[in-house]
Amino acid sequence: MKKLFASRVKNLKNSELGDLMRLIGRDEIISFAGGIPSADIFPVEELGEITAALLKDCSKEIFQYGSTEGNEGLKEYLVEYLIENGINTDISELIITSGSQQALDLISKVFINPGDRVVVEKPGYVGGIGAIKSYEADIISIEMEADGINVPELETHLKELADEKQKVKFIYLVPDYSNPSGARLSPEKRVRILELAEKYNFYIIEDTPYSELNYYDDGMEYMKKLDLNNRVILLGSFSKFFVPGLRIGWICGDPQLINLLGRAKQYTDLASSSIGQAILYEARKKDLLKTQAKKILPFYRQRLETMAEALDKYFPENTSWHTPQGGFFFWVKLPDYINSRELLNVAIDNNLAFVTGSAFFDKVEDGYQYMRLSFSDTPPDKIKRGIKNLGKLIRNY
Amino acid sequence: MKKLFASRVKNLKNSELGDLMRLIGRDEIISFAGGIPSADIFPVEELGEITAALLKDCSKEIFQYGSTEGNEGLKEYLVEYLIENGINTDISELIITSGSQQALDLISKVFINPGDRVVVEKPGYVGGIGAIKSYEADIISIEMEADGINVPELETHLKELADEKQKVKFIYLVPDYSNPSGARLSPEKRVRILELAEKYNFYIIEDTPYSELNYYDDGMEYMKKLDLNNRVILLGSFSKFFVPGLRIGWICGDPQLINLLGRAKQYTDLASSSIGQAILYEARKKDLLKTQAKKILPFYRQRLETMAEALDKYFPENTSWHTPQGGFFFWVKLPDYINSRELLNVAIDNNLAFVTGSAFFDKVEDGYQYMRLSFSDTPPDKIKRGIKNLGKLIRNY
Repeated sequence: MKKLFASRVKNLKNSELGDLMRLIGRDEIISFAGGIPSADIFPVEELGEITAALLKDCSKEIFQYGSTEGNEGLKEYLVEYLIENGINTDISELIITSGSQQALDLISKVFINPGDRVVVEKPGYVGGIGAIKSYEADIISIEMEADGINVPELETHLKELADEKQKVKFIYLVPDYSNPSGARLSPEKRVRILELAEKYNFYIIEDTPYSELNYYDDGMEYMKKLDLNNRVILLGSFSKFFVPGLRIGWICGDPQLINLLGRAKQYTDLASSSIGQAILYEARKKDLLKTQAKKILPFYRQRLETMAEALDKYFPENTSWHTPQGGFFFWVKLPDYINSRELLNVAIDNNLAFVTGSAFFDKVEDGYQYMRLSFSDTPPDKIKRGIKNLGKLIRNY
Repeated sequence: MKKLFASRVKNLKNSELGDLMRLIGRDEIISFAGGIPSADIFPVEELGEITAALLKDCSKEIFQYGSTEGNEGLKEYLVEYLIENGINTDISELIITSGSQQALDLISKVFINPGDRVVVEKPGYVGGIGAIKSYEADIISIEMEADGINVPELETHLKELADEKQKVKFIYLVPDYSNPSGARLSPEKRVRILELAEKYNFYIIEDTPYSELNYYDDGMEYMKKLDLNNRVILLGSFSKFFVPGLRIGWICGDPQLINLLGRAKQYTDLASSSIGQAILYEARKKDLLKTQAKKILPFYRQRLETMAEALDKYFPENTSWHTPQGGFFFWVKLPDYINSRELLNVAIDNNLAFVTGSAFFDKVEDGYQYMRLSFSDTPPDKIKRGIKNLGKLIRNY
């Protein structure tokens, strides 16, 4: 009955991440594959108190359907948060989503006709690119540099497309500590990309799961802050700096778009988890979101620095990387003669895991020279041991 | 920037349900609009104990990411449940979804190319038809009778399409106490539709949110039980007989399809709520799901019977309906000279609410002669009073 499926299923590849996640469960494995936050830093005690109080006082509401657009109190908090961050917004510009991944799905759904052009980072986030491709967009991948995508390359593409009377619907960016590259988009490039969006009439999807995880710099600035004409659609997540299991994210954009996304959401999952939203709303009232955003910084910074030191010490000269200033990832280039896919097989036999670079490229073969190493969910002693062993495998390859 | 949107946005209509839901909040209103379960029967005390225990023993897991395909324990329970109901299945045939609405979205996503034919009930569930239309399917609506869709009419359509070398991708059915008609598909029709699926090569989506809400008959039988060739994709929900705020549903289908749906889900929301799945898993272990499925029957039966009596007593001769044997809804036909949309305006001025029939038809004008009355979320005394007042409005129209 295969011929009954829609043409888009050719684009629904099983991301290698899924298979790897299953490996991680094995106790003896030291895994740098996950890219998930560490449950060791979750504020479980405080969440326990909050949830217990909710069960006592609001037990009916938290188990009933909520509104499609999301919990009003939570949206009001987000408005406050965004205004504090220099973004002049109000509740009509916000919608709650079932994690940021749903935001990427809904945005792709309302913008993309098959064959439409969408620009993404190369390498870039698997789930974002996957959502975009599931609506049969034509992907244009732009090379990542240490300070974010190569803007002259972007301009060349935009100009060529404009000359052919083609256009780009949107550009998908993770400006802060992107996955997998760890790169942060420079302020100059942010300004320039906004100018280009105006000139060539496209939207900018600013996805910010790692923006709170800036370990050395608290001068965080959203691109949306610089956005005068509602070109930027800002996506936010509680999954990395707080907890992911509640599956709650949000989108900030112009009211017409938010209304449309709400209609799309109605037919996608009716509403996000009521209990998840209620817990986040209470966490906000008790200032737990802010406290937690601070608490995680030294925790992950230590892991980042441990990995940086271990890589310096144990990885051979013919490997290279930029040390990130935030986020969860090191993106390591291997010597020409090593294929990261083959290296992974050897690594797994030695109880080590990482993600092969190929997962993050539209054309998989572009990634065989790279590996993504996450430090987020591995304690420092294991990071040291794992990197030492991995370095040995690379040397002896 | 409107021209940047995809062509499918023309199909993303704001369902009138959303607007009505907002009305319901007003205290003075007696609303038959909602169609949501009553929070008064939620097992809040037991859920409180379960959640408290989870927070104590599994606090890290319930806030961490879960797998895309869902909580293993919960899936194992569903396998047991399905086997008890005569469906020979295993864990490879199951995926957990973020409510049944997500199941409808994912299925539409993997089957529908723009212009594909899909058969639905007329009248039929807004959210299901909305999900299907959001992928730009061509809808074929088949008249509902007291015992489910008109099968000869279905056959005629299938034959005509086959003659034109066109085909139907799937038929979307709510066989038990459908929304809004309240109709239950007869056993004979179930068999015949399965034969037709075989003959004309299409899938059957069996959506069962109300199947546990059979107030007089416990001989519940899934269509899937009769399905020898994996033609039936069975959708299940905890939202109506248990609680909806956790946003958890499930799909049972052939393993190849489940695998494909898992890949689609990966790019749609990564995973469903961990805490929601954990609560349901524990509820199952404590047998609370079964206890609750029994406890709700007399509660909703009383409301159904109160509404049936009140309709008999207070609604004029020139209105008609079939009394349902389960579910949440009465579907009432109004006399020719009344447009339910205009009646609703008068009703709201009189602190009464219902849903106009037009919401449930692909062509809205087909529905102006009908109204949907939900008895689920209104206490018996208010049902009596509300139906009495509504009857008066219809008489005096």
